[in-house]
Amino acid sequence: MENANEIDEIFQKALRGEIKLYQLDKILGDSNKATNARRKILEKYLGIKLRHIGYYSVDFNEVVGRNCENTIGVAQIPIGIAGPLLVNGQYARGMFWIPLATTEGALVASINRGCSAITASGGARTFVLDDKMTRAPALLVPDVAHAVKLVNWIEEHFDEIKRVFEGTSRFAKLIRIIPYIIGRNVFLRFEATTGDAMGMNMVTKATDAALKFIEEHNPYAKHITLSGNMCVDKKPSYINWLLGRGKTVVAEAIIRRDVCIEKLKTLPEKIVEVNIRKNLLGSIRAGNISFNAHFANIIAAIFIATGQDVAQVVESSMGITWAEVTENGDLYISITLPSLEVGTVGGGTHLPTQRECLEILGVAGGGNPPGSNARKFAEIVAAAVLAGELSLLAALAARHLTLAHELLGRGKIKKR
Amino acid sequence: MENANEIDEIFQKALRGEIKLYQLDKILGDSNKATNARRKILEKYLGIKLRHIGYYSVDFNEVVGRNCENTIGVAQIPIGIAGPLLVNGQYARGMFWIPLATTEGALVASINRGCSAITASGGARTFVLDDKMTRAPALLVPDVAHAVKLVNWIEEHFDEIKRVFEGTSRFAKLIRIIPYIIGRNVFLRFEATTGDAMGMNMVTKATDAALKFIEEHNPYAKHITLSGNMCVDKKPSYINWLLGRGKTVVAEAIIRRDVCIEKLKTLPEKIVEVNIRKNLLGSIRAGNISFNAHFANIIAAIFIATGQDVAQVVESSMGITWAEVTENGDLYISITLPSLEVGTVGGGTHLPTQRECLEILGVAGGGNPPGSNARKFAEIVAAAVLAGELSLLAALAARHLTLAHELLGRGKIKKR
Amino acid sequence: MENANEIDEIFQKALRGEIKLYQLDKILGDSNKATNARRKILEKYLGIKLRHIGYYSVDFNEVVGRNCENTIGVAQIPIGIAGPLLVNGQYARGMFWIPLATTEGALVASINRGCSAITASGGARTFVLDDKMTRAPALLVPDVAHAVKLVNWIEEHFDEIKRVFEGTSRFAKLIRIIPYIIGRNVFLRFEATTGDAMGMNMVTKATDAALKFIEEHNPYAKHITLSGNMCVDKKPSYINWLLGRGKTVVAEAIIRRDVCIEKLKTLPEKIVEVNIRKNLLGSIRAGNISFNAHFANIIAAIFIATGQDVAQVVESSMGITWAEVTENGDLYISITLPSLEVGTVGGGTHLPTQRECLEILGVAGGGNPPGSNARKFAEIVAAAVLAGELSLLAALAARHLTLAHELLGRGKIKKR
Amino acid sequence: MENANEIDEIFQKALRGEIKLYQLDKILGDSNKATNARRKILEKYLGIKLRHIGYYSVDFNEVVGRNCENTIGVAQIPIGIAGPLLVNGQYARGMFWIPLATTEGALVASINRGCSAITASGGARTFVLDDKMTRAPALLVPDVAHAVKLVNWIEEHFDEIKRVFEGTSRFAKLIRIIPYIIGRNVFLRFEATTGDAMGMNMVTKATDAALKFIEEHNPYAKHITLSGNMCVDKKPSYINWLLGRGKTVVAEAIIRRDVCIEKLKTLPEKIVEVNIRKNLLGSIRAGNISFNAHFANIIAAIFIATGQDVAQVVESSMGITWAEVTENGDLYISITLPSLEVGTVGGGTHLPTQRECLEILGVAGGGNPPGSNARKFAEIVAAAVLAGELSLLAALAARHLTLAHELLGRGKIKKR
Repeated sequence: MENANEIDEIFQKALRGEIKLYQLDKILGDSNKATNARRKILEKYLGIKLRHIGYYSVDFNEVVGRNCENTIGVAQIPIGIAGPLLVNGQYARGMFWIPLATTEGALVASINRGCSAITASGGARTFVLDDKMTRAPALLVPDVAHAVKLVNWIEEHFDEIKRVFEGTSRFAKLIRIIPYIIGRNVFLRFEATTGDAMGMNMVTKATDAALKFIEEHNPYAKHITLSGNMCVDKKPSYINWLLGRGKTVVAEAIIRRDVCIEKLKTLPEKIVEVNIRKNLLGSIRAGNISFNAHFANIIAAIFIATGQDVAQVVESSMGITWAEVTENGDLYISITLPSLEVGTVGGGTHLPTQRECLEILGVAGGGNPPGSNARKFAEIVAAAVLAGELSLLAALAARHLTLAHELLGRGKIKKR
Repeated sequence: MENANEIDEIFQKALRGEIKLYQLDKILGDSNKATNARRKILEKYLGIKLRHIGYYSVDFNEVVGRNCENTIGVAQIPIGIAGPLLVNGQYARGMFWIPLATTEGALVASINRGCSAITASGGARTFVLDDKMTRAPALLVPDVAHAVKLVNWIEEHFDEIKRVFEGTSRFAKLIRIIPYIIGRNVFLRFEATTGDAMGMNMVTKATDAALKFIEEHNPYAKHITLSGNMCVDKKPSYINWLLGRGKTVVAEAIIRRDVCIEKLKTLPEKIVEVNIRKNLLGSIRAGNISFNAHFANIIAAIFIATGQDVAQVVESSMGITWAEVTENGDLYISITLPSLEVGTVGGGTHLPTQRECLEILGVAGGGNPPGSNARKFAEIVAAAVLAGELSLLAALAARHLTLAHELLGRGKIKKR
Repeated sequence: MENANEIDEIFQKALRGEIKLYQLDKILGDSNKATNARRKILEKYLGIKLRHIGYYSVDFNEVVGRNCENTIGVAQIPIGIAGPLLVNGQYARGMFWIPLATTEGALVASINRGCSAITASGGARTFVLDDKMTRAPALLVPDVAHAVKLVNWIEEHFDEIKRVFEGTSRFAKLIRIIPYIIGRNVFLRFEATTGDAMGMNMVTKATDAALKFIEEHNPYAKHITLSGNMCVDKKPSYINWLLGRGKTVVAEAIIRRDVCIEKLKTLPEKIVEVNIRKNLLGSIRAGNISFNAHFANIIAAIFIATGQDVAQVVESSMGITWAEVTENGDLYISITLPSLEVGTVGGGTHLPTQRECLEILGVAGGGNPPGSNARKFAEIVAAAVLAGELSLLAALAARHLTLAHELLGRGKIKKR
Repeated sequence: MENANEIDEIFQKALRGEIKLYQLDKILGDSNKATNARRKILEKYLGIKLRHIGYYSVDFNEVVGRNCENTIGVAQIPIGIAGPLLVNGQYARGMFWIPLATTEGALVASINRGCSAITASGGARTFVLDDKMTRAPALLVPDVAHAVKLVNWIEEHFDEIKRVFEGTSRFAKLIRIIPYIIGRNVFLRFEATTGDAMGMNMVTKATDAALKFIEEHNPYAKHITLSGNMCVDKKPSYINWLLGRGKTVVAEAIIRRDVCIEKLKTLPEKIVEVNIRKNLLGSIRAGNISFNAHFANIIAAIFIATGQDVAQVVESSMGITWAEVTENGDLYISITLPSLEVGTVGGGTHLPTQRECLEILGVAGGGNPPGSNARKFAEIVAAAVLAGELSLLAALAARHLTLAHELLGRGKIKKR
């Protein structure tokens, strides 16, 4: 790496304000060097050691300019695997190992137990019900008459707008534009498919072009912001809950009664009771927009591992767990995710460990046809969420189920 | 590491179902060995290479049993730093460098720009308004008369319950128990302070003990679940929005007009306009529980870097950005976080890179008095959120502010 | 009326349980007689006098079987009028007097003041942006594969379903069916236009027919309920907020600065400040689905007066007030109602006083073309809401605006 | 009444703008005369007849200045009665007849059926869990440090503030002041009990006094608005949902299985299924803040009949229906109303028909001790809501329950 003198000289310059740390990539001509120099300057400046942050196999020349700036090294997040998990989806079919990057003890073990119960019962069925990415700019017009005029113009010129929109990317396909008028404020929610990319940047760029086209032809409309918060990115929101963003996915399984007792140490009836009183009734009383036990845990762990946009865990983890006892006494359980935002290309997916995790799932890179890999990935995520949810509900339900314990004598349940 | 033969033998056994992958820690007697063995088995099984996941400096004997199971290696997430950021808080005072683990290009640069504008304007003021962790079990009683009886009993025996609760931990201090009755369902929301730990596990354990005590003395009350979803953990929720969970924090700054123009390339009036029409009005129309541009980005990046529970980004990132132009033409901007869940001990905070990041911020480990380090950390997070928010609002506002561009000729704005 | 003996005899029988009070219409063969008999029995039974309830001009033979059962008389609700209010809508054009049935002192006076300010400034512009009624049954299917199958079947057979749906009414026109799948639960939101009727009963009947048709052809689908609470009737709901129910209407006005000062005793800037800090920011912090000062007051008063379904005030009153100061220093103010449910035929609109109130507005009965009267009515309601909102915001803003008071010396403001 | 000449003269003056209609009370010195004169002018002006509006027994001299202005007569709303309903509450004990003012056909009949089933099963148990009225002004301070200072000052001077607050009314008792800080905005939620009045005006007046006291001692705090929308009045809101406003009430009943089959034509299991899939799951998916079938119907009908503030149906009707099958196969059903705002004095309660309806319920006027009458009333409302909810759920459930029909041969169910 850089020699001590060089670092010291840069440090002195930085102290004197002659250079900024973010200029180091340019000054040193190499982002790996810059990363290390910055880290060492920081060590010096703060009088601490950043030994582990500096231990990595990433090539920062592939990172800076795409994924991160002002780099000093990496965070090492432990990856555990859960599985195998049998998935019978439209896109995902077969056994999967789920890579989970987490620091929450017992999470991987719990998901693993859920995978085991699902797989032993014939696997999870999954469906992608909807697939799109959105962006919603805000405009200001003189009055509501102009707002209506603008909306009508957009309807009439949808084909032209679509051409402009789609001219910015090979994969972006405009589905529709939903207008919202609040007095003289106009919000336009652009919905588009984006192939295997999560697609937020793609849709942002395309919306920017479309918006400029709209503005040119409607000069009375004043641009306020390219994102008017009706998109909605990285915020819990009823518009995503109701209209969807990313993939809308359902996963379900029927857990055989004996599997439930043996592997989950509880009865289907108990799991149903916990689900209704906790995930439905408790959530209702608390004013949640999410009716599940811990979708966010599973989704965050997969997102970190696979290079997804982790801030999107916020809306991706919204969803409903539904459980009931079947006529045979088995457990029917499903999870519904209205707004799961995932991609297998773009963002952090090309980074080394992230790509390897996508490879573990067999979904690295673009699919054929475009979009099929991201949907396969979405189905796997949904199945993993089902596994994690099932296991935690069972653990909660089992606390007092002394009967099953005594009958089966399976010893201590791994509790969360 | 393990020799090839040993791996192969284990692989064959695993294939034959004679051993489970999660048993390897025990079989091999060392979690580093087990981690590598599992990774190699997975490579073999899937026919892929996991070279980067296997590159780490973590000691997995410190990880397994505390933070992760069934480990195969680590995710490497790039860390960039933003700053220095001047913070004038109750706990955090001085210049801070913010470590951000992210794969979203331009995020660190944008936050960095915000830090620069805030610091040039005299820094961010921060306040921790509230501090507590919660857990809310659900019970079932025969009827509403018993529900009322139970709630009255709890009120009358609060001191005893508190003793039992606090007997489980040196740091847990019970504040109050808020009851919610829905017919014959009773939810009890326990609120407690937890020192420098984020405190969810601490409060869960303490609530479990308190609940058992309550149940013993009120045998008509049937335990349903230790977590009844009124806690609310890892779900967007109005109960956390209104009552708080973790730290309730405010950060504010007055950005001088000249700093705004020079560093942020726009006018205070423009930022205010974008904030009101996007963060307030757009969010309102979309049905968001979050009235900001991208709090979740900053919080997710800090959480990953510092070993926080990343799934808690969901509620920690809820909040409001408020901006107005002062009488002098400067920009007043504040961010309010009702429910920021952070800790400097416990969870992932002891992991090597995570602890180093806490050291960068000067908040590693427990504080004196207990809780002061976590509050200091919360203030820094809030100030960083303010920086990120300011910068993105400015970027959105600047699109059409050609005047400032021409006047100042500062070249291209780093756009997000 | 009935003679005392007859009443006494019925009373004795009722006491002995030989007849039920609701049977009196049939027994006496006249609902006016039955109404009076029931009232007198109640008087006797309870030992009270119901003199005023018995004072009415309604013919109960027109009421029972259509609007009410077990009748004993009427509630007399005072009606005040506000206006004239100048409306420049698509449907409503000219001066209107607004009948308001209320018992809240100062409400009519306040709305009246708002009307005066709006009319003096050139009137309110109004637009109906959307118009439909909805009903959403719930079905249960074996699994999510069947849920998808059902949804696909409905899409493919939309024209046939539409025929069945529309066969039940001359006015019901099916627009679309929005499916929501949650595991094996399927909710179908039927949207239809309903002419001048508010249309809930019309759409319920039509949905029932359509649903039977769907069930016949998809025998795996089990009927759960004709209304699955995604309609959503008489509940505050984000689905109505985002997708609309009834009329989506906007009203706006520009209040001249001098009119604002003279009639409203405050400055445009003050009104804008109250609107932003109260209606937006305060509502946001409180977790409201409604961002206004008191839409519900105006809507409830009109609904009672005109025979609307008063329980629908719940969702009809959801909405946003938006205000800003124009470049000339005037006040721009608008109100947006996503979900205003009104009709000029059906329900209580044919009742005597109710019909007279509709006549005051010039909207009694069906329009030509169908739907135009209800839309005209919706625009008038929106304009009245604007007037009421403007006036209250001004009153709140004026508290400290001593300057205007002193300058103008207009004496005491009618405060609310 | 007035002679034709007098009316004509006033009409001419009104047309010439020499007098305003609202001045007639003063000009004629009698509000009954003024009411009739205004109505006749309106008839003349619009060329219509308002015969029924002019038919009333109200004395408008008791109305104008208290409940309505610019009066022209009354709306006649049919009143039906449901009952008897057996209530076993803390305050309400015995048989009650429920007066319902409505124009929605079948509503009274349906509630009546519910009353019958509940009474036959031993009655409804009710509890008032909480009781208070709220008002939340908004202030602006220089910065968050001042916001904290203000909040601390209020805590320290709570006793003095309470004295000022309570000095405005014999009945207002301040419970607490909950502060909300958003940057430099401070909202203060005053909570108080208000005896038998619904209490909004009482608390508004008391808060105004308290606020002036606070402002005098904290001159840096700028008054923005006496109502900052965190009160929250007449808007659906999570703050009322979670913290309550008015009475928080629960009503429950156990409906015997045979009663359920005989009177409600369905099985307990069916009602539970409809409740869970419709009121819970459907509401969840739609984003409702209300988890019931039609609370608003019953509450609106009682509110109109008894002189309550009808616009408050919005939040008063929020609530949860919970149902389950007991071990004996009976139906347990409960309704929970977090925010029921009712009073037996003040507002429209003194008007003739309204007072008579309160007398039917035995709750007219103030109670002894103060507040007991309003609580009794709240319990009766809750029990009536339970009856209405039970009946509609049964009707929805019965559609396909051919078994019970055939077995019992009870003929056609009154359907809604």
